[in-house]
Amino acid sequence: MRNLTIELDPQSTRPPYLKVADALVSAIETGRLKPGARLPGTRALAQALGLNRNTVDAGYQEAMAQGWLVAEPSRGTFVARNLPDIGLALNAGLKAVAKPAASAKSAEPHLSFTDGAADARLLPAAVMARSLRRALVRKKALSSLGYDDARGTTALRGALMAHLVAERGLTFESHDLMVTRGSQMALFLAAQAIAVPGMAIAVENPGYPLAVAAFRAAGLKVVPIEVDEGGLSIDALEAALARDPAIRAVYVTPHHQYPTTVTMGAARRLRLVELARNTPLTILEDDYDHDYRFEGAPVLPIAARAAGEAVVYIGSLSKLLAPGIRLGYVVAAPDLVARMAMIREAIDRQGDGPLEEAVALMIADGELARHARKARRIYHARRDHLGERLAASLPEALAFEIPRGGLALWAKVIDGTDADRWSDAAARLGLSLTPAARHSIDGLAPSAFRLGYAGLDEREIDRAVELMTAAHLRN
Amino acid sequence: MRNLTIELDPQSTRPPYLKVADALVSAIETGRLKPGARLPGTRALAQALGLNRNTVDAGYQEAMAQGWLVAEPSRGTFVARNLPDIGLALNAGLKAVAKPAASAKSAEPHLSFTDGAADARLLPAAVMARSLRRALVRKKALSSLGYDDARGTTALRGALMAHLVAERGLTFESHDLMVTRGSQMALFLAAQAIAVPGMAIAVENPGYPLAVAAFRAAGLKVVPIEVDEGGLSIDALEAALARDPAIRAVYVTPHHQYPTTVTMGAARRLRLVELARNTPLTILEDDYDHDYRFEGAPVLPIAARAAGEAVVYIGSLSKLLAPGIRLGYVVAAPDLVARMAMIREAIDRQGDGPLEEAVALMIADGELARHARKARRIYHARRDHLGERLAASLPEALAFEIPRGGLALWAKVIDGTDADRWSDAAARLGLSLTPAARHSIDGLAPSAFRLGYAGLDEREIDRAVELMTAAHLRN
Repeated sequence: MRNLTIELDPQSTRPPYLKVADALVSAIETGRLKPGARLPGTRALAQALGLNRNTVDAGYQEAMAQGWLVAEPSRGTFVARNLPDIGLALNAGLKAVAKPAASAKSAEPHLSFTDGAADARLLPAAVMARSLRRALVRKKALSSLGYDDARGTTALRGALMAHLVAERGLTFESHDLMVTRGSQMALFLAAQAIAVPGMAIAVENPGYPLAVAAFRAAGLKVVPIEVDEGGLSIDALEAALARDPAIRAVYVTPHHQYPTTVTMGAARRLRLVELARNTPLTILEDDYDHDYRFEGAPVLPIAARAAGEAVVYIGSLSKLLAPGIRLGYVVAAPDLVARMAMIREAIDRQGDGPLEEAVALMIADGELARHARKARRIYHARRDHLGERLAASLPEALAFEIPRGGLALWAKVIDGTDADRWSDAAARLGLSLTPAARHSIDGLAPSAFRLGYAGLDEREIDRAVELMTAAHLRN
Repeated sequence: MRNLTIELDPQSTRPPYLKVADALVSAIETGRLKPGARLPGTRALAQALGLNRNTVDAGYQEAMAQGWLVAEPSRGTFVARNLPDIGLALNAGLKAVAKPAASAKSAEPHLSFTDGAADARLLPAAVMARSLRRALVRKKALSSLGYDDARGTTALRGALMAHLVAERGLTFESHDLMVTRGSQMALFLAAQAIAVPGMAIAVENPGYPLAVAAFRAAGLKVVPIEVDEGGLSIDALEAALARDPAIRAVYVTPHHQYPTTVTMGAARRLRLVELARNTPLTILEDDYDHDYRFEGAPVLPIAARAAGEAVVYIGSLSKLLAPGIRLGYVVAAPDLVARMAMIREAIDRQGDGPLEEAVALMIADGELARHARKARRIYHARRDHLGERLAASLPEALAFEIPRGGLALWAKVIDGTDADRWSDAAARLGLSLTPAARHSIDGLAPSAFRLGYAGLDEREIDRAVELMTAAHLRN
């Protein structure tokens, strides 16, 4: 929903943020706000109400804490469909939400095409629990329970280094690698470490909103660069560099561009490396889903061919294990890693010692590789199933190519249906969609959906496509 | 050591940071740098060598990765005593260090008076492993494996809220509480959330260096305020407020002031609350060791008597479990918590779901309370034992009062011995000390030591005091 008119109770003596929450709740109770409806951004509502944005944010948080609203990272805030839905936690297809406080009746489990999250239900929980136990009880692991290296435990850094050298053609030493809490912290620390006053960073558009959030938090000016069928347009990047000398870094997702899933070809990769060689340009390569390549030759990271060039290579273990297992890593020049480690000490001092030790054990035991093979097989099948169902159910409405890897499919709306209205209609039926508008850096976005399929099994994909088709008919 | 002269190999073609590492290693190999010796700050060395500080930092990191140097958070960098010392990890009295790569012979385990860390050896590892297993395998916990609330899991927030309301007289609701990765992240996020351009924050001096690091990272100007036998001097604070209207916040550790361990009395607490009531002053109350009060009436947090006033209350579970179990929390006005949650999403998205669920289970089972009682008993005995040993061994050199709680003892040097030289001598004997200079915010510090005793058992305390006494004789 673009606009929302709510009225704050002038009689109420409650603090403003609670008045906002009250108004939202009564709008939901009176049915003016429908379950699944998307709420406007807090900035817009704050302007409309003449309130401070933080007050409206707090009102949203309160309504969330009470279970009336649901936040989905990088998608927005929605009226909850299920208050409370215990089955909801059972459905990893849905990004978890603040649990409802009120006791209402359960509803149909909410399905979601996430933005490309792994299926937490596939996590080898027993193996992980056993590894955590070993990490906790082994005397040798005591150091991971004390104050440790802000770059991560020696065991996991060593295991990751061996893995990346063997599997991805990277050549580096242990002081080049730092373990982070998911790729998000790698993005945040890298931005903080490279930022200088007035500096700008070029980003893919459409692109990854939480990366942009990390760059802006570091004071970087964000310059959106067009993405086409070949990924980031190097022509557009070169033009931007010529226009704006403040651009000293570029953020790319070459393996499967976020959100469009296209793979950057060899020619563009070489041109990008050339640019980094001949200009003071740092490449931030986010290789978040490298583990998922279902067909075609494996594509090595840009970092593997950019020896000597300024490349910050970022990866994630969360896509392999589960979104809630916050493990990522960054490979960069040691002075940059040293700076990131110093910045990190002021943020949270160090990582999750026992978890890092446990995952190092899972790598050493071959358990992680075993799980990766299993997950690849399952997600490959889910991708094919989704492609078939979409082709059969929405042939006139959607155009897409089967991605060669990754955990999401990019579907363009070709029959003129408004993607936002489509996803609002779907939400009312119990299906979360991610319209491309969520990924637009400059407000302009193609009419399309990023359909993360990994969190849905075949049966759930059938149901999700049914709901998506039904929602389309209502437009 | 204040100064260090090293020479970079002019012939070497290796990158500058490696030249720095090489020079450090050869200075150690040739014995010019003795095991346990403290290295100069990287800034000072960078100036001396005419190098960029980041280059020297990277050199230190490299030497650390190779195991030649040892970093101790908020203390500094030291030449490692034990290369490699596998037994070292067995000694939780020592803050963990980057593991040596080289294979050298083992040395006497390194003892350390930390700055007040818990003993990781006391962690109920089996209970925690069992709780983690339950958190991972229970279907209901699946939401903690997906994308969840950046403020922490509902289960842990609820458990903490009940605990804080019952035990510490706080009155608040769940939207007032956020779980963080140790109190460090609470400090970092709170600083980011309250910071406005040009704003200053008053801090205790001597005080907690990593808090200052978090405040500076948020762009806050740090104004040191004198600490006396009664804790933070409110007179000095009022004078500073009158002088500098940019001061809009004050950071205090009233339960046991860090590092001096004194408890702020009721009169000063009331005056502080009065100040917050009558001026736009936000109080950041760091109650990091509330669980450890060995005698005397329990002291409730300032937050418990400051209803309505702007108090940000920060606590930690790491002091209760282990330094490497990164769990803390912050209680504040909901709009502030909402802002912290938004900032956090760009940093690391969310906390450690399974760990948060596991600790929530440990609270529900009473396991955490059981462990707290055990730890209190053990640390109480260690405190008394250290007091006896110091009184017997260094009566002319040190003056101290037995702290009524907390995990460290503050010992003033009264015989004119230089505390830095004393701790250097101790380091050469295998004992890490924390001279007050490490806690000085303005460079001026009393001649004293903060002796964290919790990580040492009675036998280790005997040995540590022997080494401290021997080191004193060498001055």
